[in-house]
Amino acid sequence: MKIPKDHPRYRSLVTREKLVEAYKQGVLAPEGLIAHGRGESFDYLLGEKTVPPAEKAERASAAMLLNSKRPVLSVNGNVAVLAGESIIRLAEAVPCKVEVNLFHRTEERISKIAELLEAFSDMPVLGRNATARIPDLDQPRGICDQKGIFSADTVLVALEDGDRTEALVRTGKDVIAIDLNPLCRTSQKATITIVDEVTRALPRIIYHVEELKENPKLTQETICSFDNSENLQELMEYIRNSL
Amino acid sequence: MKIPKDHPRYRSLVTREKLVEAYKQGVLAPEGLIAHGRGESFDYLLGEKTVPPAEKAERASAAMLLNSKRPVLSVNGNVAVLAGESIIRLAEAVPCKVEVNLFHRTEERISKIAELLEAFSDMPVLGRNATARIPDLDQPRGICDQKGIFSADTVLVALEDGDRTEALVRTGKDVIAIDLNPLCRTSQKATITIVDEVTRALPRIIYHVEELKENPKLTQETICSFDNSENLQELMEYIRNSL
Repeated sequence: MKIPKDHPRYRSLVTREKLVEAYKQGVLAPEGLIAHGRGESFDYLLGEKTVPPAEKAERASAAMLLNSKRPVLSVNGNVAVLAGESIIRLAEAVPCKVEVNLFHRTEERISKIAELLEAFSDMPVLGRNATARIPDLDQPRGICDQKGIFSADTVLVALEDGDRTEALVRTGKDVIAIDLNPLCRTSQKATITIVDEVTRALPRIIYHVEELKENPKLTQETICSFDNSENLQELMEYIRNSL
Repeated sequence: MKIPKDHPRYRSLVTREKLVEAYKQGVLAPEGLIAHGRGESFDYLLGEKTVPPAEKAERASAAMLLNSKRPVLSVNGNVAVLAGESIIRLAEAVPCKVEVNLFHRTEERISKIAELLEAFSDMPVLGRNATARIPDLDQPRGICDQKGIFSADTVLVALEDGDRTEALVRTGKDVIAIDLNPLCRTSQKATITIVDEVTRALPRIIYHVEELKENPKLTQETICSFDNSENLQELMEYIRNSL
């Protein structure tokens, strides 16, 4: 079905088609389509733009990635389809590793997503044939790569399941979460919560990484001056005012 | 994939699986999965319950259906999968017609959804081989049944596209909309807006139909005392307070 160009929500409808197409090609789990819809609603409430508290969290995330010893970007189907290239550009900028890690895990989808990402760079993408386990998560949700998420000190997740975020935090890792729902467990439990749409958030993080990477002192100050729960409160205030 | 029973969002995950299964059987368009996700977010903000302004709109809708000459319930894939039996029970209680009407229309899906509904009753369901047109809507979004939506004075829609709601209102019909997003065009343009989850809303409307159907005077009063924009404001207040 062709989307009528004069539809007021044309851009949003085209993004949906992109995800539907990815689902048909086996890149996305059908649950990924539902998850996208959830995000759409919250983005609606944000006015579909990066609000100031989100920008602040993006800057703090850039600083935290730069300040970590073994940061890893965790990628699922939705993120790869919508923002695969930005993920690779961010990994190159920091630099850090990228791991495909799926809630509805199948080796076939892991491979497809990894290939999709590898098309943007020579960087090897982790996640295939992973054998390590995040403690306290049942199979197959707990599977991760020994050299990736398992040994990371900081993990950036986007559109992540609450159980998995909590399990990562319990292992003592710092978790940066990109999620449009400020109320979900992932947003509530993350070390830094970025309430923004993933295609807007990643370029902003890259921008801040480029700016902070030559300045360790400013990087340190950026982390120290950031308070996640305070920032989440500010964010909620934005949504409340939009209603 | 089996959903872990101990997952805090088990019920919500099972509903998603039900929709995914319906998609795989060709009942649902993939865009229906995304639409469900959008609803989930707003339901989250409502606390996943029928709030008082929603109950008021449900009662007013019951009254309006009873007071109409040719009311029609318009059904799409999501509504049929989640609340097909309630739709039929409501149609019997009023009584009124049921028409399958799809944004992403294919005759095959129309038939599958009609069959799904007809399993609950002997009532014939409209929508197959429809030839009439809602004015100002391009093909195939404007197609509807001559004996159903086209000649209806009141149409109940659920999870409906904004363009279509506006087009129905422009023809002078009263539109009752069930939609979890109070900000979308469907909610803003409908005659009566029910901001509630469809499986909760329909049984409440049936309840009020049963109560009002023997009392035309009370039915009339219920309609006259209902102010949709005022009610929507109250609803927004609920969401604002939940944040």
